[in-house]
Amino acid sequence: MPDLSMSSQPSRNLGTVALKWHGDRLDLLDQRQLPHHENWLSLDTAEGVGRCIGDMVVRGAPAIGISAAYGVALAARQVTDEHWQSQIRSAIETLAKSRPTAVNLFWALSRMTSVLAGCDSAAEAVARLTETAVAIHQEDVAANLAMADHALAVMDDPGRFSVLTHCNTGALATGGYGTALGVVRRLHEAGRLHNVFADETRPWLQGSRLTAWELARDNIPVTLNSDSAAASILRQGEVKWVIVGADRITANGDVANKIGTYSLAVLARYHRVRFMVVAPSSTVDMALASGDHIPIEERDGRELLEVQGTPVAPRDIKAYNPVFDVTPASLIDVIVTERGAVSAPGVAAMEHLFGASRKAF
Amino acid sequence: MPDLSMSSQPSRNLGTVALKWHGDRLDLLDQRQLPHHENWLSLDTAEGVGRCIGDMVVRGAPAIGISAAYGVALAARQVTDEHWQSQIRSAIETLAKSRPTAVNLFWALSRMTSVLAGCDSAAEAVARLTETAVAIHQEDVAANLAMADHALAVMDDPGRFSVLTHCNTGALATGGYGTALGVVRRLHEAGRLHNVFADETRPWLQGSRLTAWELARDNIPVTLNSDSAAASILRQGEVKWVIVGADRITANGDVANKIGTYSLAVLARYHRVRFMVVAPSSTVDMALASGDHIPIEERDGRELLEVQGTPVAPRDIKAYNPVFDVTPASLIDVIVTERGAVSAPGVAAMEHLFGASRKAF
Repeated sequence: MPDLSMSSQPSRNLGTVALKWHGDRLDLLDQRQLPHHENWLSLDTAEGVGRCIGDMVVRGAPAIGISAAYGVALAARQVTDEHWQSQIRSAIETLAKSRPTAVNLFWALSRMTSVLAGCDSAAEAVARLTETAVAIHQEDVAANLAMADHALAVMDDPGRFSVLTHCNTGALATGGYGTALGVVRRLHEAGRLHNVFADETRPWLQGSRLTAWELARDNIPVTLNSDSAAASILRQGEVKWVIVGADRITANGDVANKIGTYSLAVLARYHRVRFMVVAPSSTVDMALASGDHIPIEERDGRELLEVQGTPVAPRDIKAYNPVFDVTPASLIDVIVTERGAVSAPGVAAMEHLFGASRKAF
Repeated sequence: MPDLSMSSQPSRNLGTVALKWHGDRLDLLDQRQLPHHENWLSLDTAEGVGRCIGDMVVRGAPAIGISAAYGVALAARQVTDEHWQSQIRSAIETLAKSRPTAVNLFWALSRMTSVLAGCDSAAEAVARLTETAVAIHQEDVAANLAMADHALAVMDDPGRFSVLTHCNTGALATGGYGTALGVVRRLHEAGRLHNVFADETRPWLQGSRLTAWELARDNIPVTLNSDSAAASILRQGEVKWVIVGADRITANGDVANKIGTYSLAVLARYHRVRFMVVAPSSTVDMALASGDHIPIEERDGRELLEVQGTPVAPRDIKAYNPVFDVTPASLIDVIVTERGAVSAPGVAAMEHLFGASRKAF
């Protein structure tokens, strides 16, 4: 397992991390079963990792990217003959089909593909792909810690205040610490956090099942609310920031994130509450001009017709279940990445930090 | 049972009504168990009816008012001695405590109290209170039919269009036909409805469990969506109106309704989608100057921690569960009652239709 103790910051609590690398296998905490059961799945094939991503055993854009990278490292260990390069490339292609929206997946696979191209033997591929996956994991944690510091520098509110968040962007969704929830952790560490309102985040209930669980474990004050109560909460004035993560950020600063994020951005603007997006640079896709081009995953309508296997609607009712939405840059006050904070995001500011044409996988 | 066939409109389908009066008992369809089980409860006491209102066996502001009126009629049948008037008044007081927000409850009890005051014997009370409860029920259905006609006259959109609704405001929530869902029925009857998007309406899932069920039974096209997807749906342009009911409308046109209504009103205004509130005049409370004075019911946080008895969050997490919110009149394009439609509602327009000082219970 990589050393993620961040020796320069020995006391930092990274939260409950849901993926563990053991050199020859990847263990994933099955997030579908949280908070009731803490079951770990052990994966030693790329196919297995791909299925875990598709089935949402592991979720959260950065955690998906890290898992996919480890999946490629596992593929390298599986090769059987002189066709090792095409076998690994084929595994990469399979992993790329596991989910469509989060760009971190494609970013990680692109990086692994580049490393693979420079390998001269299967043994070298095993070593270098493993090393790269570990680096992607460690860099993600370092990015989260850096983003939290950048975010706090932007938040000029006096005294302790409350924030509202959506979905889960914590240790569970990343290599550790979290993106938006990393900012929450940092606010709490700094004594500036009054309370976190957590949207329950239907249909998958990442807020109830994951965010509330993760924050409560670390004694960070959290209050759960239905997604549709967020407007009333913002109206009450206690919440100063809505803080969310991202699954893809395009060249103009548009943000794809969990369904309901766009709704919150409109509501935050209406109530003059500031809106912050926190994501590592691996979430930025400078190859897409705007959010109009982001593929939005629609999942099975059953996710709305059942809750944890319990039916809550008539069978065979038509359901519309897009699991992401796109928030235009104009509704975002600040995008925070490990490279710094971008206020009033737009093309120029994004290019300044990320360059003009980074190609996605 | 009262004649609700509306002989002047013999072919009108009133939908699936959830309350049936049998002269000496009130049968209520247990809406907590829909859509999986269609269990009817038979009530012959006011206390039983009060418990059914508090426990949400019956819900929906108009249906609560009607049920409470029948509860008073049952109380009159229960009296034992010469203290019949105080016994009935005591039952009325118990019924008044069953739920706090929907004013139809207090309106119906106030009307029953006035009738009681004019009765000279227990026998007369039984007869006149029963007759009044039946009238309240019949008038509610007539009001729903009238409101649907008023609403359609206001909707000047060409061709067929889609609407979005929240919670359940249909036959189940009223004496029959529905308020906002009555307008949907009427649009469908007139061949003007393309599709109804139904918010699932957490935490109680009235949209999934009741609205989708009720509309599907009557072959009205419905698509279920998570509450947080409404913003994306409104952005797509197919929905021309958001149509909701109300639990209380104050003298300035502010509206208390199911949690999430205020959120939709802000989102509708942002997307230039018109916002209509449909409720009978029994929902209007001219005694309250504005929505700031409406008591907002907070229910047990368990409603967020469990879905149909299945836990979906860690035990003992703090949850904020207001079940109504207040939408300011300024975000409402039209309020429709059986007395007519009020565009751009405000104090003057409300007083014009409802008079200056109607006292609530």
